[in-house]
Amino acid sequence: MIPLPLAQLMEHFRRLPGIGPKTATRLAYHILGMDRDRALALSQAIIEAKDRLRYCSVCFGLTDEEPCSICRSAARDHGIICVVEEPRDIAAMERTRGHEKTRGFQGTYHVLQGVLSPMEGVGPEDLKLRELVLRVQAGGVREIIMATNPNLEGEVTATYVARLLKPLGVQVTRIARGLPTGGDLEYADEETLAKALENRREI
Amino acid sequence: MIPLPLAQLMEHFRRLPGIGPKTATRLAYHILGMDRDRALALSQAIIEAKDRLRYCSVCFGLTDEEPCSICRSAARDHGIICVVEEPRDIAAMERTRGHEKTRGFQGTYHVLQGVLSPMEGVGPEDLKLRELVLRVQAGGVREIIMATNPNLEGEVTATYVARLLKPLGVQVTRIARGLPTGGDLEYADEETLAKALENRREI
Repeated sequence: MIPLPLAQLMEHFRRLPGIGPKTATRLAYHILGMDRDRALALSQAIIEAKDRLRYCSVCFGLTDEEPCSICRSAARDHGIICVVEEPRDIAAMERTRGHEKTRGFQGTYHVLQGVLSPMEGVGPEDLKLRELVLRVQAGGVREIIMATNPNLEGEVTATYVARLLKPLGVQVTRIARGLPTGGDLEYADEETLAKALENRREI
Repeated sequence: MIPLPLAQLMEHFRRLPGIGPKTATRLAYHILGMDRDRALALSQAIIEAKDRLRYCSVCFGLTDEEPCSICRSAARDHGIICVVEEPRDIAAMERTRGHEKTRGFQGTYHVLQGVLSPMEGVGPEDLKLRELVLRVQAGGVREIIMATNPNLEGEVTATYVARLLKPLGVQVTRIARGLPTGGDLEYADEETLAKALENRREI
């Protein structure tokens, strides 16, 4: 008994990650309450993002220019490459630059476009690893910072990349594990706490 | 350093209700990972829903036909009108029809398109109340079920509508308040518990 265009919009939202039926309903009705111009802008932003963004041929992040603005920037340190799993991880790392207390990340990136996972049949040849080796072999790279996720696949991938690149004479580091800012000691899982203890620094 | 089409898409999502910056980022990247056809379908569903849906001239719910399928249906009981605040509340009530144990709501609706709120300057003339009175005066209506939200404004509106319609010789009822299914007695607020006690039924 729900009109078809509304039911279809709800169904589209429901298929998005983390959107349940109630949120989908709320979003659909919200859009129906918008000005037509704003609804049209949202509609167009979706298809424009889809049509205009490509993978950068250098770092494999998402870009609407070739190469991407980070890979082209003279203000960035091209001697440091931060290796991440997915393009979205670049956005997370870039947010560190907005912080006043920390200087934030000044280097460049390399997106593996995945993570080693024997369970899901993802091997080294499925990742942008050959391209990373070529970047290091081209010279000028002093440090590779492995910023894969702090889980089993991420750690295995970080170790694999380190073994692959160290013979090329580049320093390979791993982002630290410890208690998150604002986290509560009482509620921290034992592995996080163990890592925080292990990585303790003099104050 | 985030490409513009991506930043714009994130910003559009971030403006939707209940979507924070992290969810907006996740949704934007998810759309970039979709097939172009699916992204285009989502894009079109938004503007089609916006362009094709109107308010039904009888019940003021959303519809792509005039009058809406519920107001036209011979299978519904037009002698019972369920009065709700917003079009989305019809979707919630209609979900009761999918339940096997309860027969669900078989009547029709009337959307007030708001709720009485002196605080926000919403008076009776701002709601679709005159239209409701006209529907009752036209005859054939036995019962008005007030299904406004169980909060102060909703209760005030329900009482107001009851006083308005009772002189017309129609029965006006209010949906029950009590403990929600799956709710925990221990965590129920005192008002809910008091209402549940007050509305107790013999078993």
